[in-house]
Amino acid sequence: MKYAFQDLVDLGTKIFLAAGLNEEKAESVSRLLVTADAMGHTTHGLAQVPFYVKGLKDGTMTIEGEPEVLQDRGPTVVWNGKRLPGIWLAEKAMTLAAERAKKYGTCTLTMREAHHIGCLAAFLPAVTEQGMIAILATSDPSGKAVAPFGGVEPVFTPNPYAMGIPTEGDPILVDISCSISTVSMAGRLNAEGRRFPGKWVQDAEGNATDDPSVMLSEPKGTLLPLGGQEYGHKGYGMALMVETLTQGLSGFGRADQPTGWQGSVFLQVLDPEAFAGADSLKRQTEFLAETCRNVKPADVSRPVRLPGGKASVGLRAAKAEGLELYETIMKGIEPVAEGFGISMPSPL
Amino acid sequence: MKYAFQDLVDLGTKIFLAAGLNEEKAESVSRLLVTADAMGHTTHGLAQVPFYVKGLKDGTMTIEGEPEVLQDRGPTVVWNGKRLPGIWLAEKAMTLAAERAKKYGTCTLTMREAHHIGCLAAFLPAVTEQGMIAILATSDPSGKAVAPFGGVEPVFTPNPYAMGIPTEGDPILVDISCSISTVSMAGRLNAEGRRFPGKWVQDAEGNATDDPSVMLSEPKGTLLPLGGQEYGHKGYGMALMVETLTQGLSGFGRADQPTGWQGSVFLQVLDPEAFAGADSLKRQTEFLAETCRNVKPADVSRPVRLPGGKASVGLRAAKAEGLELYETIMKGIEPVAEGFGISMPSPL
Repeated sequence: MKYAFQDLVDLGTKIFLAAGLNEEKAESVSRLLVTADAMGHTTHGLAQVPFYVKGLKDGTMTIEGEPEVLQDRGPTVVWNGKRLPGIWLAEKAMTLAAERAKKYGTCTLTMREAHHIGCLAAFLPAVTEQGMIAILATSDPSGKAVAPFGGVEPVFTPNPYAMGIPTEGDPILVDISCSISTVSMAGRLNAEGRRFPGKWVQDAEGNATDDPSVMLSEPKGTLLPLGGQEYGHKGYGMALMVETLTQGLSGFGRADQPTGWQGSVFLQVLDPEAFAGADSLKRQTEFLAETCRNVKPADVSRPVRLPGGKASVGLRAAKAEGLELYETIMKGIEPVAEGFGISMPSPL
Repeated sequence: MKYAFQDLVDLGTKIFLAAGLNEEKAESVSRLLVTADAMGHTTHGLAQVPFYVKGLKDGTMTIEGEPEVLQDRGPTVVWNGKRLPGIWLAEKAMTLAAERAKKYGTCTLTMREAHHIGCLAAFLPAVTEQGMIAILATSDPSGKAVAPFGGVEPVFTPNPYAMGIPTEGDPILVDISCSISTVSMAGRLNAEGRRFPGKWVQDAEGNATDDPSVMLSEPKGTLLPLGGQEYGHKGYGMALMVETLTQGLSGFGRADQPTGWQGSVFLQVLDPEAFAGADSLKRQTEFLAETCRNVKPADVSRPVRLPGGKASVGLRAAKAEGLELYETIMKGIEPVAEGFGISMPSPL
């Protein structure tokens, strides 16, 4: 069952309006959730609607207001997101950083206490379409699931780091977390009675395993950093970098022992015109993308792909032909919509 | 056999002077090579002397001159390194970026065609000592050893990415490459008849293996990206990011099909005073470091460490008590020094 892209955006917008957000915030959050679904990041798409609505109802997601500007020097900006909808904040921040980057060459914005900003890759095309490079990273100082290398207690969230890179064609969209997998993936696999493809988690004693249930049983296991028990110092290093950029530069984080779902955010836009030029950048990135696509694959039926390639194709297809969602996603939204007296869209 | 830190710096300086570099360049390159040794990065320390001298002799490393400024907007700078000694260029660039960051909040410098810049971590303490964050990444567009995820032909160099993070104590120094290992490590293990601790490389057909000899036999194998054949899309993504920042922004790279050992460089300094403040940054990073150190280790005899912790201790110890080098390193330098009539230092 497929739905029109805009019908899904309208559905989410109506729900968030009913939950109290204004039109601008409701539309931004809904559109970027549907964009995430279309890009294949289904854990960070409309599946979040029930959680966001719950947050708006219980006051853990702020309904009204603007981010507080803690410092603004032009090329550097710090916001307090005041637990406002993170997706709307991140889109607003990315728009500002892109404008500023055109003026200053780069713009770096850090934000403390946004709410959840969702799927990082969804924010990147707006910048790559302008021929610029976008960097976006986030962490949640109230959460911990990832162990430092050599340890068996959690310290970090998966701390994703993303970069949007313009080419002559579809952008390269890198979006990688510092842990091999995530808590939500462990939950999904566990519910489906499946296992990880490798030893991606460890139990509380530090035994690496592919069994996702160790993340749910007591004492709780931990997500392994990228590289696992073999060379997880690399993922550990990445986790420390993202914590520093998101929490350290925004001046609020684990040292404050905050509680409640939130997002600390680092974003940076780099304008190639302030370096060797936009054409020079695309010449290199297009050559690189083409080189990778032409590499002999290990399995002839699976050509080498570029990160984000499938997401761009998916997004175009969803806008042109509609979008299929996991059944469980629509089932999760239905009671929320019903509670507000909002009718579900008809499939195409 | 230990040598005084300064004696080793003097040895390298004399050799590079004899090979034609001026005092400033010779001292900078030598001091940072010895620093790399003291920090434990022994493949990127004095072991490089014979190769650098060879480069200076055959003209592949430029002896005289200054980098050409291709663009300078204040917070953004692009240099052509003209194959001048990369270590000297990188130190000079980092010094400039640190000065500029204090003025603009951040400074980003990209450089095409430097020569090899050596050990990334060695450049970071000069910035973290000023309470700022330093980012440094490099690639070599003339080299390729790392396969993209799903491919069996090489596209990338290991493309290291490093970040220096100030804390109340020793800095956190992250220095990670996008591949699990390196060509030089494969060579070292192969020479010693050893294997990688895991399946870190693959042969030309795409069979993952711990056998380093596949990197030397024909047809040549490839280094696997971080995550290997299981989740190497992550290391592949990192490799693309580093290529973009180093070659894309500097406007010279693989698209130009350059030949000969070189380094494309990206560096960025972020001054926390332009964000939430230097004290706020250190408050978060120190808390994080302390949290990690106190995490229960998987093996009680191996407490959780911070990246760069051992390097800082090693550097202090080397300066105070002297430095022990692999026998093969001094053996490699000896004929070079002899050729110039330079006597080797006496051990302590």
